[in-house]
Amino acid sequence: MRYKCIVSYDGYNYKGFQVQPGEVTIEICLKEAIKMMLHKDVKIYPAGRTDAMVHAIGQVIHFDLDLNIKPEAIKNGLNSFLPRDIRIVDASIVDESFHARFSAKKKEYHYLVKQREPSVFENRYMAYYKNLDIDLMNEALRMLCGKHNFKGFCSGSVNPLKDFEKTIYEAKIIKDGDYLRFIFIGSGFLKYQIRRMMGLVLEIGAKRDSLETITRVFNERDPGISHKIAPGYGLYLMKVYYD
Amino acid sequence: MRYKCIVSYDGYNYKGFQVQPGEVTIEICLKEAIKMMLHKDVKIYPAGRTDAMVHAIGQVIHFDLDLNIKPEAIKNGLNSFLPRDIRIVDASIVDESFHARFSAKKKEYHYLVKQREPSVFENRYMAYYKNLDIDLMNEALRMLCGKHNFKGFCSGSVNPLKDFEKTIYEAKIIKDGDYLRFIFIGSGFLKYQIRRMMGLVLEIGAKRDSLETITRVFNERDPGISHKIAPGYGLYLMKVYYD
Repeated sequence: MRYKCIVSYDGYNYKGFQVQPGEVTIEICLKEAIKMMLHKDVKIYPAGRTDAMVHAIGQVIHFDLDLNIKPEAIKNGLNSFLPRDIRIVDASIVDESFHARFSAKKKEYHYLVKQREPSVFENRYMAYYKNLDIDLMNEALRMLCGKHNFKGFCSGSVNPLKDFEKTIYEAKIIKDGDYLRFIFIGSGFLKYQIRRMMGLVLEIGAKRDSLETITRVFNERDPGISHKIAPGYGLYLMKVYYD
Repeated sequence: MRYKCIVSYDGYNYKGFQVQPGEVTIEICLKEAIKMMLHKDVKIYPAGRTDAMVHAIGQVIHFDLDLNIKPEAIKNGLNSFLPRDIRIVDASIVDESFHARFSAKKKEYHYLVKQREPSVFENRYMAYYKNLDIDLMNEALRMLCGKHNFKGFCSGSVNPLKDFEKTIYEAKIIKDGDYLRFIFIGSGFLKYQIRRMMGLVLEIGAKRDSLETITRVFNERDPGISHKIAPGYGLYLMKVYYD
């Protein structure tokens, strides 16, 4: 049986999704919860590996079990063993052709920024930038949209033979008082891509950098041109789209 | 110079306010920030010692310095050395007769409850109880108001010679959709008093206990009668009132 779960987490206290020796990650917590519940070591496939501190509202995982357990029991059982800041919000049985990562058609990420100092209760959930020019940032997002080689916005540690061509279908800002919500919907995103794009977009909004830098990063494909990386705790994996 | 500061903190990751050997507490963080900034060991007096996981919007502290530093510099300087979940929101110079604890006339605490399962982003900030009868809980709060001996709602570990007589001036519920905000304003509160009162009020609201238990706790003054203690992470020290 292949199980698909939608997972939500407050990523602030975690070193990202992927298992890393000696670090507390989302994947380790999920694997441990499955082991506690079913006494099995199960391999988990996520739609995408979120970075340290990054949150998720709609991360998707799949895993296979040689047991026939009702999805509702998987959801409630795992939640009883998971820490309070990781929740299975939905579980279902899917066809064996489903793959959390390879079947994904689009991903939606949000990035939250507050233009006044966040309270101690907001600090974990948004970045803080003052005096941002929304028009300039909208223009920056317009330039990032479409099909591009995003190597210049990718972590330098990624295999250089990787396919860096990705499509951003939509990028926009929703303003709600002091809060700015940046919305990105794309075919997929490279390691650090959104945080690096956001780092530059926010520098442009604060008038410490200019729109021309986006063109330079696209042309020269060098992550050294714009080295600002927006904090992980402002980023949310909102939704993974499948057919 | 005597400095008064209003301090806000997300208490979820802290073992309460007071210094405890080997534990990370709010007081230790404040003392360390002062030491980093001024190279001095300074004694800090809080209005009240909050428990592990309890939050504060308006905790008040005072401390003395043999230096004349502008309050704004104290605020910004300490904030630069404090963790992101502890913030000085205001600093001022006060008369030497001011004492954060002994000058306090009233304290206001809020307790947050959600009647639907909190998200991973709300989990640290509210308790979760289902199917609560608001009318019954309002009646329970009415019984708790006034001047009483609250020994039966106090931690059993407190010195039995302590003065357990306190006055609750106001106790009410504000309902906002699935969220319930319990508001308590009183002359002062004993160790665990609000969490023990809330534990019983919520049991009464869930119809697992009855209003008569409140009378019994007041009459018999035995903390063993109602041993439910509502989680610390639902509690907020909102405001300390001075003349």
